[in-house]
Amino acid sequence: MKLKVKLLGLSAGTPVGILNRKLALHANIHVSDRILLEKAGKKIVCVVDLTDTVVKEEEIAVSTEVLEALKLQEGENLKAESTSKPQSIYFIHKKLSGETLTKAEIKTIIEDIVSNALTQAEIAYFVSGVFNNGMKREEIIDLTEAMADSGMRLDFDSPIVADKHCIGGIAGNRTTPILVPICAAAGLIIPKTSSRAITAAAGTADVIEVLAPVELDIDKLKQVVKKTNACLAWGGSLGLSPADDKLIQVERLLNVDPEPQLLASIMSKKIAAGSTHIIIDIPFGKSAKIESKEEANSLKNKFEDLGDYFNMKLKVILTDGSSPIGNGVGPALEIRDVLKILRQEKSLPSDLEEKALLLASELLEITGKAKPKKGYALASKILKSGQALNKFREIIKAQGGDIKEPKLAIFKKEIIAEKNSKITSIDNKKINELARLAGSPADKTAGVYLNKKLEKVKKGEIILTIYSESKEKLKDAFEYYSASQPLQFR
Amino acid sequence: MKLKVKLLGLSAGTPVGILNRKLALHANIHVSDRILLEKAGKKIVCVVDLTDTVVKEEEIAVSTEVLEALKLQEGENLKAESTSKPQSIYFIHKKLSGETLTKAEIKTIIEDIVSNALTQAEIAYFVSGVFNNGMKREEIIDLTEAMADSGMRLDFDSPIVADKHCIGGIAGNRTTPILVPICAAAGLIIPKTSSRAITAAAGTADVIEVLAPVELDIDKLKQVVKKTNACLAWGGSLGLSPADDKLIQVERLLNVDPEPQLLASIMSKKIAAGSTHIIIDIPFGKSAKIESKEEANSLKNKFEDLGDYFNMKLKVILTDGSSPIGNGVGPALEIRDVLKILRQEKSLPSDLEEKALLLASELLEITGKAKPKKGYALASKILKSGQALNKFREIIKAQGGDIKEPKLAIFKKEIIAEKNSKITSIDNKKINELARLAGSPADKTAGVYLNKKLEKVKKGEIILTIYSESKEKLKDAFEYYSASQPLQFR
Repeated sequence: MKLKVKLLGLSAGTPVGILNRKLALHANIHVSDRILLEKAGKKIVCVVDLTDTVVKEEEIAVSTEVLEALKLQEGENLKAESTSKPQSIYFIHKKLSGETLTKAEIKTIIEDIVSNALTQAEIAYFVSGVFNNGMKREEIIDLTEAMADSGMRLDFDSPIVADKHCIGGIAGNRTTPILVPICAAAGLIIPKTSSRAITAAAGTADVIEVLAPVELDIDKLKQVVKKTNACLAWGGSLGLSPADDKLIQVERLLNVDPEPQLLASIMSKKIAAGSTHIIIDIPFGKSAKIESKEEANSLKNKFEDLGDYFNMKLKVILTDGSSPIGNGVGPALEIRDVLKILRQEKSLPSDLEEKALLLASELLEITGKAKPKKGYALASKILKSGQALNKFREIIKAQGGDIKEPKLAIFKKEIIAEKNSKITSIDNKKINELARLAGSPADKTAGVYLNKKLEKVKKGEIILTIYSESKEKLKDAFEYYSASQPLQFR
Repeated sequence: MKLKVKLLGLSAGTPVGILNRKLALHANIHVSDRILLEKAGKKIVCVVDLTDTVVKEEEIAVSTEVLEALKLQEGENLKAESTSKPQSIYFIHKKLSGETLTKAEIKTIIEDIVSNALTQAEIAYFVSGVFNNGMKREEIIDLTEAMADSGMRLDFDSPIVADKHCIGGIAGNRTTPILVPICAAAGLIIPKTSSRAITAAAGTADVIEVLAPVELDIDKLKQVVKKTNACLAWGGSLGLSPADDKLIQVERLLNVDPEPQLLASIMSKKIAAGSTHIIIDIPFGKSAKIESKEEANSLKNKFEDLGDYFNMKLKVILTDGSSPIGNGVGPALEIRDVLKILRQEKSLPSDLEEKALLLASELLEITGKAKPKKGYALASKILKSGQALNKFREIIKAQGGDIKEPKLAIFKKEIIAEKNSKITSIDNKKINELARLAGSPADKTAGVYLNKKLEKVKKGEIILTIYSESKEKLKDAFEYYSASQPLQFR
């Protein structure tokens, strides 16, 4: 049937079409049914809401998600037809029942996720199936390819496109804005795309955004890379592996991240980004995503196997993930740490500098920019000479930003040592939660500054400082600090 | 915050609240977040949509699901507050990870399902966890109790309240409208509530509705039972075990029905309905829900164990489920079969009559209305003497209906035998699907009539007839018949 588009400016988080109840009765369409909308060859599946008022019988009101996907305007005509259960439902049932999926079945599931033919509940069944029954090597390869094929691909017309990825989970740990300018200054093409925070206090994109826009479109990104060899952009606006974004939304609900999904998620984004040489950082330890070295090694082997299969030069580095890296946790506090290192200030966080240099040196070596075992010396030279700072400034400027001193939040609460002691552990998850309660990453100026790390503290010294733009949030955060004890002392 | 209610008459299938985008920004609420709405102590959790127009900053537009739950009127004030992830998320994660849940954890999950604090995707994770990891006996008992406690309870003030349940999956098989009047005529209190079709061609409620209203409220239902000893009502409008209804919605998406869920679903509804003596029919065979006798026996033992635990007199009967029972499939065609049996017409489907008598006799025996092994004779006498027909008429009248000849659909397609042969099997699932494609159960007059069952057919004889109100649906159904071959011949 043909329907006239009515705009309500309604965002529902998922594509929704609102029909008149009489029309729906006539067409045998029910609430929560799915209908396929089509305009000029572009298609999207949406969920049906019904109304007696707002929308007339010949009209359909669509949510902004439909509007953007089909580029609709008020009063336009749209083709709508009811659509039956997608075939992928049966394949998801197979996976939930412990069976192995074929390449074609996995491809169909991913295509249906991207076209919105599957609801979040149906995607949750798929995630559960993978979580409980795992995936064979072949399935993970097929999943990776299907996800990479589900969206845009970048092409930088260069034999070497360098990249770096960390599986996350560590508070602070902002190595990317240090190693990217080092590697770019060494002559590598390194078009780095990063995520925003999901459950952490900040993602690299949130941190860079303190100084420069990160939501670049593909043309702008290519222009920045052409000018500077690099970029520090948000990956979310580029349409790389869109199936992955939808899967992550559903995984977040229960905080599950099945290993096959983790592997395919990262690898598909790297393939879509055109990366050829990649360093993957797997931090492990208590309060990290991966707790044991055995687990970390098993994951390392799987990543390297996939790297071989997809003809990438991929090296996995296992690092210490038992406590936060750097002192700042939260966008402004983290970029301040980064600037201290790039400027080689005396108060720089040496653990963060050391880790960034290590990862940069590995990337310089696997790309051949440095001879084996000579990467560290090269990376250090570029950092200490100020070349990295200059390159960082170039990238920030090319993205439309400027290096200015990051402002911190107006309210702060200092935690003072009650006696002489030693900090024996700092819990990543609790520090992230503390920074989030203070307002990070939505308030870029909020977060936690670890004045002391794993070291001796004297009575009266400041151990950590919580920054917040709101007195209530500061209070909530302090209460959480007291109740959860993110630091252990001896 | 306080918000003014605006009515849009919007049905979304799930509680939705639409906020103005500016207000949301100010209050740090995002699309798809959950907020808790409260009016006069009644609470409901809804999902947030955002709009720039339609709703002003001080307003909230709510879907009809919220409207009905809180009994709202235009312009009323409502308390709204953002709500964090419910605790049950962690318990669902536990179940998905294969752990055993405590009574309190199960209770919290069920309460959060009923209050809409959990989305369909989160419920899907719970169903997946139960599907993949099962539940221990204690967990099933706790789940049953939590579900029974989640809604209304019926009380008929009688030491014996008889009931019957079939786990479903067989086409036709409409024994309930025959055995209920038999048992009621024998003096049993049998307030039967039934479901509508979920995936079948018709549910008992759809079939009775051809003759009488089935959506009775609790007062009306009690009045009908007081007058006639029985009722033939739809269970869905009574608010018994509402958690079960929401779980079934999510299970339907993937067509999964984990055994612990099946057990708790049926038992919780029986507890809430106040049933004391219950016959459960488990049909097994090829194309039934349960394929093997071993599986059927294992399920029987679990039902009987739960019956003991909950102090019910519960007997499970295993029956032949390898092919449809009766000739009609679809509401009007099935009630025609039922009326033929109640009237003892010559053309009655004897397999359906036989099965109804068997189940009735078992129920008469476990309630003590008949001595052991004397139930069948009593049931037959009541049926053949016309007492059952009179009682059926009484019940239909008390519900506000009338016994009239069921009308069949205008268009029909007869399938003719091409040669002499024998029908060796009839597939339940395919016959149900065939009837659904013809328009059943939405079109009560549509469906399939099996002119022949497992018997010899001569060339030129009618094997089956498809009835439909629409030529296109008839065509679709016939195409499905040709492609799927629901009957096998020799």
